[in-house]
Amino acid sequence: MTPIEDAVKILGKHISHRVEEVEEVSLISALGRVCGEDVYSPIDSPAYDRSAVDGYALIAEDTFGASSTNPIRLKVIGRAETGAIPSDLPIVSRGEAAEIMTGAPIPPGANAVIRVEHVRRMEGFIEVEDQVAPLQNVSRRGEDYRRGEIVLRKGWVIKPWHVGALASLGIGRLKVLRRIRVALLSTGEEVVELGSRLKPGQVYDSTKPMLMALLSSYGAAPIDLGLAPDDPEIIAEKISRGVEEADMVIVSGGTSVGERDLVPEAVSRAGRIVVHGLAIRPGKPIGFAISSGKPIFMLSGFPVAALVGFQALVVPAIERILGCAFDPPPRVRGKLTRRISSPPGIRTYVRVRIFKDEDGEVMIEPLRVTGSGILSTLTRGNGLLIIPEDLEGYDEGSEVEVELLSPIFEGG
Amino acid sequence: MTPIEDAVKILGKHISHRVEEVEEVSLISALGRVCGEDVYSPIDSPAYDRSAVDGYALIAEDTFGASSTNPIRLKVIGRAETGAIPSDLPIVSRGEAAEIMTGAPIPPGANAVIRVEHVRRMEGFIEVEDQVAPLQNVSRRGEDYRRGEIVLRKGWVIKPWHVGALASLGIGRLKVLRRIRVALLSTGEEVVELGSRLKPGQVYDSTKPMLMALLSSYGAAPIDLGLAPDDPEIIAEKISRGVEEADMVIVSGGTSVGERDLVPEAVSRAGRIVVHGLAIRPGKPIGFAISSGKPIFMLSGFPVAALVGFQALVVPAIERILGCAFDPPPRVRGKLTRRISSPPGIRTYVRVRIFKDEDGEVMIEPLRVTGSGILSTLTRGNGLLIIPEDLEGYDEGSEVEVELLSPIFEGG
Repeated sequence: MTPIEDAVKILGKHISHRVEEVEEVSLISALGRVCGEDVYSPIDSPAYDRSAVDGYALIAEDTFGASSTNPIRLKVIGRAETGAIPSDLPIVSRGEAAEIMTGAPIPPGANAVIRVEHVRRMEGFIEVEDQVAPLQNVSRRGEDYRRGEIVLRKGWVIKPWHVGALASLGIGRLKVLRRIRVALLSTGEEVVELGSRLKPGQVYDSTKPMLMALLSSYGAAPIDLGLAPDDPEIIAEKISRGVEEADMVIVSGGTSVGERDLVPEAVSRAGRIVVHGLAIRPGKPIGFAISSGKPIFMLSGFPVAALVGFQALVVPAIERILGCAFDPPPRVRGKLTRRISSPPGIRTYVRVRIFKDEDGEVMIEPLRVTGSGILSTLTRGNGLLIIPEDLEGYDEGSEVEVELLSPIFEGG
Repeated sequence: MTPIEDAVKILGKHISHRVEEVEEVSLISALGRVCGEDVYSPIDSPAYDRSAVDGYALIAEDTFGASSTNPIRLKVIGRAETGAIPSDLPIVSRGEAAEIMTGAPIPPGANAVIRVEHVRRMEGFIEVEDQVAPLQNVSRRGEDYRRGEIVLRKGWVIKPWHVGALASLGIGRLKVLRRIRVALLSTGEEVVELGSRLKPGQVYDSTKPMLMALLSSYGAAPIDLGLAPDDPEIIAEKISRGVEEADMVIVSGGTSVGERDLVPEAVSRAGRIVVHGLAIRPGKPIGFAISSGKPIFMLSGFPVAALVGFQALVVPAIERILGCAFDPPPRVRGKLTRRISSPPGIRTYVRVRIFKDEDGEVMIEPLRVTGSGILSTLTRGNGLLIIPEDLEGYDEGSEVEVELLSPIFEGG
């Protein structure tokens, strides 16, 4: 069984396929998409020296030596309003000052601004008791972005503040990578699609809907290949269609070691199996093949195991193909309510319930589960404790860090 | 100046408006939306006792006393396939076993399953050397969800695993709360909309696009009220329109203490100002009013300050109005590259650059900034260090936890 870290490295080495096509979208539609080009600033921002405060623009040197015993008196010659055209502003000479608003251009001649709270105002004059340094309270032209400076890099996932930065530079549209396409196939004779009526012995496919939702949350475009019967030829054919149409294929179900495990057989017809059997729990056996430089993942048909496999393998593969990096999931620290053990050499994902006790302390309660299929542990529970390969568990009362699947339960 | 924690409490006390209207959507469209009803399981899941492994269904009592020196021999009377109808299965009697696949119904008479790897197979028989406990490797009917049991609660933000859980129960549609509507208004004479041509002295509105993106990322529906000129009557009128049409209003710009600060004046015409001036940096002054039980926020026109105000006040208000809780932002721990100080009594948000040094250690470098408007600190930088009110900073080399805005920079 291959340790996760090695599997991710092998995956990275074998995936040669990349998404390179870009599409131009509006800023607001770019949110969560992957930046498709290096973006440089077309302008200096700010476009002019401007005041960072409400106050008086003056010549800093006029204030040198100012103190409460030696106040300096400056003549107020006008006013610089926010939105004013810089060339329309009064010129400030020695011994003079101009009233100025936050964001207004610094009038010619002036080189600093004193806050309105720090002067004594008189009819036509101000008195200054503090020394002002040159450029004090001045936002310099190009201070935020200089024209030609890099703003965003290709491969960055677009966040709200990136939208703000681009907007401040007048950039209203952005080239983003097209969405990564992921083809999904479910296997298993007992599995039926949501919307059908269950016959005795059948179960609803819950793994594919969950994987589609997971993919959407990473900005991917799922392609539903439906359900496949237990026929390796049909499965292989569907996988090959997936490899053609999509950037990645995920097959769920049918990967265990029983006789009727047709998925590995079918996958090996459609591609070359590189890893089969991961040191991960729940989720083993799990693995992947490569075809045309694209990965074909074999995930468990059990939704919790599929979730773990998705996080461990599929997310790094998406990052590889798009050349991007996603945020890690939110984590929280807390105290284990009971001892938990795990097999050595295997990365173990323990489903936990994270709650605050009466004292407001964060407690982590490992849930008792019998199978990797128990979805209720992800609705009764709200987190995953990941025990690394080199540990055999944690003692009761240990301080551990867990992945939050849903917010902490308040009040026990 | 009001501390954040108090402001959030005051906010919670004054917001009486709630979003209660629901809309029914498909499972995949429910992702990220707020659950609008308590959801109960319509079925037992699994619907029948089934095998958790590939192996042989048997009567546990037959294996009592089995050992390597005393192997028990059982007659294989048939096979239970995945997807089989339980009533079609062979009945297992004492001394008998039936081959069984993972997920297949347990044949009548049997009460446990032994893994295929743990038996010796012979023509028409198996030999068992291990004792099997009753219900071993059996997933019981209703073990995951019992019919009538609660699955999701009203107010939960729908995650991919919730989609999986609902799908497993055959639930294909879900009632979610309608999106919260947030009206946005920008003020400031120098501010122009993206897409216009900048005249000297003007700047692009970057705060509103950033706020619209932030709102989208929380599943809210922004309503763009545009830009308002420096006229308190027009601003007040637009805010009142916002209060009517939306669940919340955000006005950005014009909240500082200068003479031309029309926003507080305008806001007080449209609602009752409850907090004006928050102990937060950057971002002060900032505040909110209430009208018809809905909040009207005054955020800074400087995007970084607006971001901080959004996180501190707007997110809790959305949670209040929807009765939900969002995940905290991702955080990471690292070592401060230099000393950083902050004013006591004020919650200070320091923009930082988070990177891994040559040894792979996470380092946190506070960025030197001159103004709250410097958006480049959110593209050059990738995190926020929040210094609480009761600290005056951190020493160089301190281990601190920061909020990740974008993934850690690799390689310095």
